[in-house]
Amino acid sequence: MDASKYKDINLPDRILLGPGPSMMPARVSQALSMPVIGHLDPAFLAVMDDVKDLLRYVFQTENEFTIPVSGTGSSAMEAALSNFIEPGDRVLIGVIGYFGERMVEMASRYGATVDRIDADWGEVLDTDIITTALKKHPYKLLALVHGETSSGALQPDIKAIAAAAHQQGALFLLDTIASLAGSPVKVDAWDVDVAFTASQKALSASPGVAPITLSQLALDTLSKRKSPVGNWYMDLTAIQKYWGGSRNYHHTAPVHLNYALREALRIVAEEGLEARFARHQRNVEQLWEGLEELDLEMLVRRENRMHTLTTVKAPPGADADQVKQRLLDEYNIEIAGGFGPLAGKIWRVGLMGHSSRKEYVTLLLAAMREVLSSA
Amino acid sequence: MDASKYKDINLPDRILLGPGPSMMPARVSQALSMPVIGHLDPAFLAVMDDVKDLLRYVFQTENEFTIPVSGTGSSAMEAALSNFIEPGDRVLIGVIGYFGERMVEMASRYGATVDRIDADWGEVLDTDIITTALKKHPYKLLALVHGETSSGALQPDIKAIAAAAHQQGALFLLDTIASLAGSPVKVDAWDVDVAFTASQKALSASPGVAPITLSQLALDTLSKRKSPVGNWYMDLTAIQKYWGGSRNYHHTAPVHLNYALREALRIVAEEGLEARFARHQRNVEQLWEGLEELDLEMLVRRENRMHTLTTVKAPPGADADQVKQRLLDEYNIEIAGGFGPLAGKIWRVGLMGHSSRKEYVTLLLAAMREVLSSA
Repeated sequence: MDASKYKDINLPDRILLGPGPSMMPARVSQALSMPVIGHLDPAFLAVMDDVKDLLRYVFQTENEFTIPVSGTGSSAMEAALSNFIEPGDRVLIGVIGYFGERMVEMASRYGATVDRIDADWGEVLDTDIITTALKKHPYKLLALVHGETSSGALQPDIKAIAAAAHQQGALFLLDTIASLAGSPVKVDAWDVDVAFTASQKALSASPGVAPITLSQLALDTLSKRKSPVGNWYMDLTAIQKYWGGSRNYHHTAPVHLNYALREALRIVAEEGLEARFARHQRNVEQLWEGLEELDLEMLVRRENRMHTLTTVKAPPGADADQVKQRLLDEYNIEIAGGFGPLAGKIWRVGLMGHSSRKEYVTLLLAAMREVLSSA
Repeated sequence: MDASKYKDINLPDRILLGPGPSMMPARVSQALSMPVIGHLDPAFLAVMDDVKDLLRYVFQTENEFTIPVSGTGSSAMEAALSNFIEPGDRVLIGVIGYFGERMVEMASRYGATVDRIDADWGEVLDTDIITTALKKHPYKLLALVHGETSSGALQPDIKAIAAAAHQQGALFLLDTIASLAGSPVKVDAWDVDVAFTASQKALSASPGVAPITLSQLALDTLSKRKSPVGNWYMDLTAIQKYWGGSRNYHHTAPVHLNYALREALRIVAEEGLEARFARHQRNVEQLWEGLEELDLEMLVRRENRMHTLTTVKAPPGADADQVKQRLLDEYNIEIAGGFGPLAGKIWRVGLMGHSSRKEYVTLLLAAMREVLSSA
């Protein structure tokens, strides 16, 4: 082995304006470089307690069970579904884009009979249609995506939808991966039973841990399971024994990612949720106005747009992939393209967490003007 | 929210001589603090290529499919089992401690009929007994733990056992979580079909990613599955599309943990595997001699001891938990206790990766002498 062919790591300074990861504050980087300690060390248990506490603030909940699982956002989605599905359960899933499709796929793998309610990518679901669908069968749960990063649409009316689910005896699961900490998510006020997110979107921590919170109704449902959870690593009852009182070993927690998450959450708390939501709204509105001035059209109608991610239609004649590539090569700016039915048709611009900054919006608009005029 | 009650992170400088995480070299810490970039950025794809390459060196394999999954070692164990088990498959699992038990539990959750071969904690399995057991039924796979961190025993004779499994048409899976990079693991020469490890043991990277490698026979088996893998997040065929040629998005890779893993692997390559194994052996032998001078007895007979983790019997009259606690409180040294049938009876001392150093052995022995004489 000639080790000398592997050089010192040398990464470009990117400006991350895609669907995540977002920019990370310097304080979060510093937390990552803190010394490693054991996952059962009293000093690490104190870090865990702060993380749980701060997560409750961000999820706007009193839920005791509020922890990060040790994987990325998709693993939290799978934790949410696998823990509440037993083989043969019937579930209802709203699909307004790629991540709704992913939930359908995951639920099927855990043996659920899945019914789905679809809207075109870029649209949202009508509350009446959901309410009607919920009455067709007794459902174990209803699962929706709050902010659909594949389309840029934000599902409104969550409180009424949660109430409709509970009316029919179904649990209500909400994917807040792309919305939490960038726009309001009120777990308790909306009566959401299971909400989950990712670390590297509007929280601006390092990817690889994913927070999840469970209501009392969710905990009661867990305690009544007849079969073990299909997924051992994401078995929330076992994980809670480590994160909760008894501190039983389950798996080695990613200690550095938890340091980073704690620091990122502390920054959210210092800014305050309301100020943070207002900042995201202010910056995204500047983006929308600037894009319109460039004669670009958004995919999603204004009232349903996410504040953390904007989908922009590539104009006729523009090569969407080439524009994206030039922004990366010439300006070190990362934005994303579309996929599925939107492949080659849109750009996805994320202003999430530490990436939601006026200077980035101004730069991106100026860079797009230059690139589009010289395409 | 009063954010001021959450103080700057302030962690003790521990000397980690437990079953992992191990000490991390400063260069690995520096890699963790490198800037975040996108998981589809060309610069990150280059990091991934180096990680795969270097992992092949450490696993001593040419396997194309050699990647880290995005979770801790237990998630790699679950990836190994869930991808190769279909409901109704019969599997054989060797149990010489806690992590063998864990494989039994995981395999059951994926619908396998599990037969087990047991040895007492501290003992290893006899190759003839395994060979005889393999002939009783047609098994889909045989799974063993190489280094059992709960007991300190290293299963010998892996090459012969792998041959016996193949003779009977079974795949051979090996948990190398606590052995890889600390003592020889020869995936190709031993003909292991699936081997997996963790980042925070003898590799001395940050916890939260877990390398796994698959032989051609394992890949062929995967391609013949009749049912989807039960676990979406750990579906290796889908993950390979991201780590392999087509770079299809599956989930957001933990970018910082991959920087750290790359740097840790580079350090292994610079030292060289043979020198690294010799260092682990030299230091652990110094530990064993020193413990004997303290009139302490090892749980495992010498020829079956791991070089990365030593289990020591607490002497009559000593309070094992109290000694462990005093080492932490007075010396900042982390060692671990026993669990299961060994709870309160042993200490577990890890000399893994960057923790396998002469100065730590000398310190630990001197500290134990002081603590035991003043207990």
